[in-house]
Amino acid sequence: MKQIIIETTVRVRYAETDASGVVYHANYLIWFELGRGEWFWQQQRDYHRDVEMRGLGWPVTELSARYIAPSRYGERVTIRTWLAEIQSRAFKIAYEVVNAESRQLLCTGWTKHYNVDSQTNRAVPMPAELRKFLEGEG
Amino acid sequence: MKQIIIETTVRVRYAETDASGVVYHANYLIWFELGRGEWFWQQQRDYHRDVEMRGLGWPVTELSARYIAPSRYGERVTIRTWLAEIQSRAFKIAYEVVNAESRQLLCTGWTKHYNVDSQTNRAVPMPAELRKFLEGEG
Amino acid sequence: MKQIIIETTVRVRYAETDASGVVYHANYLIWFELGRGEWFWQQQRDYHRDVEMRGLGWPVTELSARYIAPSRYGERVTIRTWLAEIQSRAFKIAYEVVNAESRQLLCTGWTKHYNVDSQTNRAVPMPAELRKFLEGEG
Amino acid sequence: MKQIIIETTVRVRYAETDASGVVYHANYLIWFELGRGEWFWQQQRDYHRDVEMRGLGWPVTELSARYIAPSRYGERVTIRTWLAEIQSRAFKIAYEVVNAESRQLLCTGWTKHYNVDSQTNRAVPMPAELRKFLEGEG
Repeated sequence: MKQIIIETTVRVRYAETDASGVVYHANYLIWFELGRGEWFWQQQRDYHRDVEMRGLGWPVTELSARYIAPSRYGERVTIRTWLAEIQSRAFKIAYEVVNAESRQLLCTGWTKHYNVDSQTNRAVPMPAELRKFLEGEG
Repeated sequence: MKQIIIETTVRVRYAETDASGVVYHANYLIWFELGRGEWFWQQQRDYHRDVEMRGLGWPVTELSARYIAPSRYGERVTIRTWLAEIQSRAFKIAYEVVNAESRQLLCTGWTKHYNVDSQTNRAVPMPAELRKFLEGEG
Repeated sequence: MKQIIIETTVRVRYAETDASGVVYHANYLIWFELGRGEWFWQQQRDYHRDVEMRGLGWPVTELSARYIAPSRYGERVTIRTWLAEIQSRAFKIAYEVVNAESRQLLCTGWTKHYNVDSQTNRAVPMPAELRKFLEGEG
Repeated sequence: MKQIIIETTVRVRYAETDASGVVYHANYLIWFELGRGEWFWQQQRDYHRDVEMRGLGWPVTELSARYIAPSRYGERVTIRTWLAEIQSRAFKIAYEVVNAESRQLLCTGWTKHYNVDSQTNRAVPMPAELRKFLEGEG
């Protein structure tokens, strides 16, 4: 399994801050999703075409995040994303959010996803082609 | 056309505030949506069952809002919702957001909705039954 | 330490759903925050008055969530909230989100919070009065 | 007054879609905010430094939006932003959101902002330097 780390950089939106003056914690989970999407796109994949159009879905079934330092409106943050683990019906993606300029670590975390049949909503084995891709060989 | 005003009260979430210390302006539009949903439910209607299941949709096609006073975390706000206008393929819902305790006016606005066929995404005449309901007679 | 479980019920907003037709996973974290706020309020406490006004803050420093079943627009969900753990400078709040009607379990999780000085952004020991409250004795 | 149009391009987040399969309408207002921020930054200005640090704020006091066509997860959208009107204590920013590839028009709108003193929350005349900037001469 090759380790491919994809980076995505976005600017903090005013909408993402809260009354404490810094980014609201749940928005880091949305940034994880951005990282996940770009990890896909930058490898010439597309969640809608390659997963949803096949009658599959990769819902988040578990997640974890640790907050190390806050970020503020207008700052640029980089989300670093990689595949951390793969099983026959599930996989785990890991993330690090850093300040794009100083590279200070802001947040780390992971999300676990099951490969589910959209009709039955049950976990099913990953198609071989998608598994190869996830393993960094497709 | 009978004027039925529906009230919904919610508490301001921390997630809804921004770094200026008050509720982020776009979140009032989400409160309008809450008001719209309750306006429906409190009249024994359900958007999913009565509109979406019929192959229709009522997307927002235009909106307007004026902000009069800010609201803060933990305050309770009341959304007052009523039908402002009805045409054969479109209607307008109006809203007032007030502080639930002091009744101070915080925000006013309206949303315009077309009755669209979900397949074609085109505006079509409202089914008679729904129109009656919107006119306060169903 | 008395175990006090506080329940809060809200209706799923259209804004909270995503293109997969169900509630977007990060929104459960916002529901945790609602639960946390109500856990406070229903015990005659107020985060702004009792924490922020004292120059303190309780930022989320770590969180975890497991997703068991999806929820949909218009459904009513109940967030059950309790104090799971307390240390001198930190504490953990636990949550369960269930369907308000069927009581089906949808999501479980916890958030860890440090008691920080808002000026220095450093963890400091909890004031005795707040600690008593957290322990269910104040 | 020189007309300077600033363009910002972002990819649609899954979090921004709703159960109808397309972007939730209120998220266009957040995109307007992005456009407004970039309109500022790309002219070497910074809202926090140039407005908030001076004890001023530019809250949205009124807004309007028209929705022409939907956008979907993963699409890239471009927000075009310009100053539409300026008065002594207020100004209006206008926006167009287009599909970044096809340039199809998705949404148009404007936001009105008052120049307020953060302490008193009252509208005050714009500092000459900021006014010059807004007029495209600073």
